[in-house]
Amino acid sequence: MTRRIFITIEYDGTPFVGWQRQVTGLSVQQVLEEAAAELTGGDILVQGAGRTDSGVHATGQVAHLDVPDKFDANRVMEALNALTGDHPVSIIEAREVDSEAHARFSATGRRYLYRLLPRRQPPALDHGRVWHHRGGALDPGAMQAAAALLVGRHDFTSFRASQCQADSPVRTLDELRIEPQGEELHIHAAARSFLHHQVRNIVGTLALVGAGKWTSEDVAAALAAKDRSAAGPTAPPEGLYLTGVTYPTGI
Amino acid sequence: MTRRIFITIEYDGTPFVGWQRQVTGLSVQQVLEEAAAELTGGDILVQGAGRTDSGVHATGQVAHLDVPDKFDANRVMEALNALTGDHPVSIIEAREVDSEAHARFSATGRRYLYRLLPRRQPPALDHGRVWHHRGGALDPGAMQAAAALLVGRHDFTSFRASQCQADSPVRTLDELRIEPQGEELHIHAAARSFLHHQVRNIVGTLALVGAGKWTSEDVAAALAAKDRSAAGPTAPPEGLYLTGVTYPTGI
Repeated sequence: MTRRIFITIEYDGTPFVGWQRQVTGLSVQQVLEEAAAELTGGDILVQGAGRTDSGVHATGQVAHLDVPDKFDANRVMEALNALTGDHPVSIIEAREVDSEAHARFSATGRRYLYRLLPRRQPPALDHGRVWHHRGGALDPGAMQAAAALLVGRHDFTSFRASQCQADSPVRTLDELRIEPQGEELHIHAAARSFLHHQVRNIVGTLALVGAGKWTSEDVAAALAAKDRSAAGPTAPPEGLYLTGVTYPTGI
Repeated sequence: MTRRIFITIEYDGTPFVGWQRQVTGLSVQQVLEEAAAELTGGDILVQGAGRTDSGVHATGQVAHLDVPDKFDANRVMEALNALTGDHPVSIIEAREVDSEAHARFSATGRRYLYRLLPRRQPPALDHGRVWHHRGGALDPGAMQAAAALLVGRHDFTSFRASQCQADSPVRTLDELRIEPQGEELHIHAAARSFLHHQVRNIVGTLALVGAGKWTSEDVAAALAAKDRSAAGPTAPPEGLYLTGVTYPTGI
């Protein structure tokens, strides 16, 4: 008999090739699967809700794993935290769920935060944790006005990585909010699901608006073009955080 | 002819032996002095306002240096940021001051922040940036009540490192405030100047109060004892940030 455990995970994406296992280097998934195998003595699949790219961080990634039923959720959390050692990966919550619950397919929402630091001086403490935008000041009001045009159900082909494997380019963006936070701009994005690079491509485009190089009309035109080359560049991974995944009541 | 420049510096204290030059390893001061020497072609002393210990961070350290007058403040900032390279040190502000102004001796106030994360789960993104207090929840109200007893002018012998070189153990603590901040507790401390380890020794003691092991009365007794062994342990350096230094109007 096994129990299905949902774990909420915080990680620094800097040293990893991303969430997902790859032959090219160490992934967060591999770190967790190796720790789970050490705990249980068997091969364990750790299935994540979101496949973050290399350099992308998480404060609220969710994943599930099935463990022999002698291990309860709290023991899984404590053991994984001990067994992941010095890797910057931490299980901050664990709970048992129904065996039908699936971290990826049951998810009804994902939230991302993008941190942007618009100043000439490099960040010392937040190196690798924010997009250091050397181009100087960005206008959050102009960015918010352009962001409003992207909220709702749209064909996001222009904001989708060419290697994106989703069947459809249509997504419903529930929230896209620009929040000045001290010297930084925080961009909050929420949707049921996102296309590959969708948040980073949106942020790269909004930064052009903030710098006065693009207007809201340019953003509307880019969206309508349904062509990746019509939108702005991909913002770097180090500013992006997967902050939360939501599930229906009962999971 | 030279100009005296005040620089405001942000740094990650993790890889350094501290602010001050030491034979045992790399200091922030050495990184800045080597960059200044490369810029000007001569030996330059970079005099800091506060001598932070190894592992202690800064978001608002201030230092002064004298440069040949062909370099203005902005050029000094840009050049030092370029020449400090990959070291986690960044000049975030620079301004010319009167040649009598002294980063250390003219300072009229110093502010520190101490970040404490009371939870079992280790921090992934903030490893080395907070004190991970595994002991669980801390009561901020009890800590604030005890903190109030330390505010004002006192003989802080009980909270002073044995190797402290200050002539007098008497200091006036202007502020000692506990602020819950999400999962963290932030402790804000302000004074004209601090004794060696004073903030960390106070935090280590307040954590005993927060955990219910000590009462406010124990803290008052520890202060009155004028004996380092009567107070709590020294909190670790990684939670401490020098956030600002103040100067009289006109500097």
